[in-house]
Amino acid sequence: MATVVLNSVNVMSQTTARRCFMSHLKGLANAGDSHLSSIPKLSVRRWSSLPGARWFTCGTGARFMSHGAAAAVVGFMANAGHFQRAEMATRIPQVAEEEVERDILERCKGFMSAPVTDISALRERKGEMCTRMEMLIMETQAEFCRALEEVDGGTFKVDRWERKEGGGGISCVMQDGKVFEKAGVNVSVVFGNLTEEAARQMRSRGKVLKGKDGKLPFCAMGVSSVIHPKNPHIPTVHFNYRYFEIEEEDGSKQWWFGGGTDLTPIYINDEDAFHFHNTLKEACDKHHSQYYPDFKKWCDRYFYIRHRGETRGIGGIFFDDLDSPSQEEAFSFVKSCARTVVPCYLPIVYKHLNDSFTAEEKDWQQVRRGRYVEFNLVYDRGVKFGLATPGSRIESILMSLPLTARWEYMHEPANGTQEAKMLEVLRNPKEWV
Amino acid sequence: MATVVLNSVNVMSQTTARRCFMSHLKGLANAGDSHLSSIPKLSVRRWSSLPGARWFTCGTGARFMSHGAAAAVVGFMANAGHFQRAEMATRIPQVAEEEVERDILERCKGFMSAPVTDISALRERKGEMCTRMEMLIMETQAEFCRALEEVDGGTFKVDRWERKEGGGGISCVMQDGKVFEKAGVNVSVVFGNLTEEAARQMRSRGKVLKGKDGKLPFCAMGVSSVIHPKNPHIPTVHFNYRYFEIEEEDGSKQWWFGGGTDLTPIYINDEDAFHFHNTLKEACDKHHSQYYPDFKKWCDRYFYIRHRGETRGIGGIFFDDLDSPSQEEAFSFVKSCARTVVPCYLPIVYKHLNDSFTAEEKDWQQVRRGRYVEFNLVYDRGVKFGLATPGSRIESILMSLPLTARWEYMHEPANGTQEAKMLEVLRNPKEWV
Repeated sequence: MATVVLNSVNVMSQTTARRCFMSHLKGLANAGDSHLSSIPKLSVRRWSSLPGARWFTCGTGARFMSHGAAAAVVGFMANAGHFQRAEMATRIPQVAEEEVERDILERCKGFMSAPVTDISALRERKGEMCTRMEMLIMETQAEFCRALEEVDGGTFKVDRWERKEGGGGISCVMQDGKVFEKAGVNVSVVFGNLTEEAARQMRSRGKVLKGKDGKLPFCAMGVSSVIHPKNPHIPTVHFNYRYFEIEEEDGSKQWWFGGGTDLTPIYINDEDAFHFHNTLKEACDKHHSQYYPDFKKWCDRYFYIRHRGETRGIGGIFFDDLDSPSQEEAFSFVKSCARTVVPCYLPIVYKHLNDSFTAEEKDWQQVRRGRYVEFNLVYDRGVKFGLATPGSRIESILMSLPLTARWEYMHEPANGTQEAKMLEVLRNPKEWV
Repeated sequence: MATVVLNSVNVMSQTTARRCFMSHLKGLANAGDSHLSSIPKLSVRRWSSLPGARWFTCGTGARFMSHGAAAAVVGFMANAGHFQRAEMATRIPQVAEEEVERDILERCKGFMSAPVTDISALRERKGEMCTRMEMLIMETQAEFCRALEEVDGGTFKVDRWERKEGGGGISCVMQDGKVFEKAGVNVSVVFGNLTEEAARQMRSRGKVLKGKDGKLPFCAMGVSSVIHPKNPHIPTVHFNYRYFEIEEEDGSKQWWFGGGTDLTPIYINDEDAFHFHNTLKEACDKHHSQYYPDFKKWCDRYFYIRHRGETRGIGGIFFDDLDSPSQEEAFSFVKSCARTVVPCYLPIVYKHLNDSFTAEEKDWQQVRRGRYVEFNLVYDRGVKFGLATPGSRIESILMSLPLTARWEYMHEPANGTQEAKMLEVLRNPKEWV
């Protein structure tokens, strides 16, 4: 029986991981956890063969947790439904981030699809950042999709697509599921040549890059996801982690990372907000004490619907153009972030799985979905860039849009309502940690 | 009893107009016209006091029709449910467009609200284009709103709003009615000072304008509307007619008109498409034989969702920057267009009022609504300009968005279906007349 190599120096069996995951989930779900018992047996096998299992390891102790994000999970387990705050930090072992590389082929087995790049090419260039990042985004996609399938009971539709100019992607979409109205998790790996002007535009700080005869070979890849649940008490989540590499005339490589994870609740829940932000903060703090405060602010600024004077949601982290202190350390940070997605979000999903809701609450969700559409179509840089780029795969770009949305003229919640409380937070971003 | 001055040299009593309107409607509606009988008696009074009545006059003959658009209505009456094509043209009397000015105060009585500009100021500057255009857009709003109330049975919510920097507007919205999911008809009249740069941007041909100390006094006004019906067999309609005036350093005035009317069916219906385009063509042809062909092409180019490779609907006409051959003639053309809105659209609404539809057809409507949102938020110049302008009334700009919309991943109708037929038309714009 194969073993799962954790994102740390230790190893545990899949059976243990799965058992812990299930007991963890059961601890998390509030009172009525009838939905949990309906998770099909098949999914046990499916889950246990996946890297995602590492998120819920609880085998012999906290030292198996590779980074801070896991602490939040432990917090959940110790006190189901309640978040443990500052005191948790002291329990996080400062294990050095070490990438224990399993064989590429072995790792690929757990993916939603074969990677975009040929496995033989990946094996040849095993040590290169493009390969390591492609493996990370494929793993992140699989881990997140499996976790969502587990809670929903549904199955992702997996589409592989090719880009004529070079590269392609894997789009995983689950639509009209039991828990999720629309869930999309997309990986793309594209390469080719950029003009100097296009290269400059792609880099937010607008550095001037010199290419051979004006052409710059580039490689761009990322994983991105938006999840719209049905229940208005389960928030929408979005994340995106990406890597960019451009080769200049002299053969030197410019590279940078970008990404972020942010939450869009329909109703504010302080406990969820704390958990989400704290999980991100702990992942950030392992790398730099300024990352969380800086990237939290950046997130609030970025996900701002200017014409409404409100943020899209309660934020999280957002960063771009990250090319320091070293490629290795930047990658390690991005890896921490990517691996924090499941522990940031899934506990919140399980917690509210059986929350009842009214038609009015569903309506408010639909109005907020409308705002989500407004942000994505009017402001989101990725969407705008994608829509303006010939040859883009539109369905993958717009899979971030909700299945349904609503625009009511002059919708304004009455004072003192839960809807008004949510708006208040969106109009005045808070510190959650 | 007051009389209604027609948009021509003649006059008829409201009672006759109303009787003709009702008999016209009855002729139009197909077999099951149960809905018509449910129009409340109150609406008879309401309708007959309005300029809109002129659209359906049939008193003593076609000579009362002020322009070509009315011919389509006559066509409907003569042959209920069937459009009469080219032969209709020969029956249109070429009555010169004459603006018979009633007293401003008298005309204002039929509006949805008092005009944005003080009535006393309008009376003082009765002959100025700004006044004449404000009266036209107020009349167009009232005429269209009353016609929609008549068919729906519902009532428009009327909001007057002021713009801090000068001017304001009147937004009329009917939401979740019997026939209309969301109907918005907006008038705005704004004035103040523009920077030279802003003035240049507002003019699509980008003329350089010189202001006193860099400031240019301006006045901009328009009526715009989007109607989203519930029944997927009734198309969405949009129209917008606007006027812009800027005063240069030497006191000379730059002015231009813009506008258009276009149709977005969910299912293609050749007869409707012909009626809609032919009604517009006849209004255009009275002014210039190139207007319809040129503005039809402009419309297809403008309402194009580039990232989907499809037009928003089946078009109509669209023009901007119209400042020739003279202000009087340009205004006369715009007036013809504005007065063509009701006869373009209402016959189609009545025709499909009682069409039955399936859940699948409703779904397809929701998917097309999603495309409508994509166009409006990504490409529409008016929306983009509005969202980017501080102090804009967002609710009036975004009232064009449907109440509900849907985004299905990889939605592609099966070959041979009515949905595929619609897409085919959107991907390859047709000549309808």
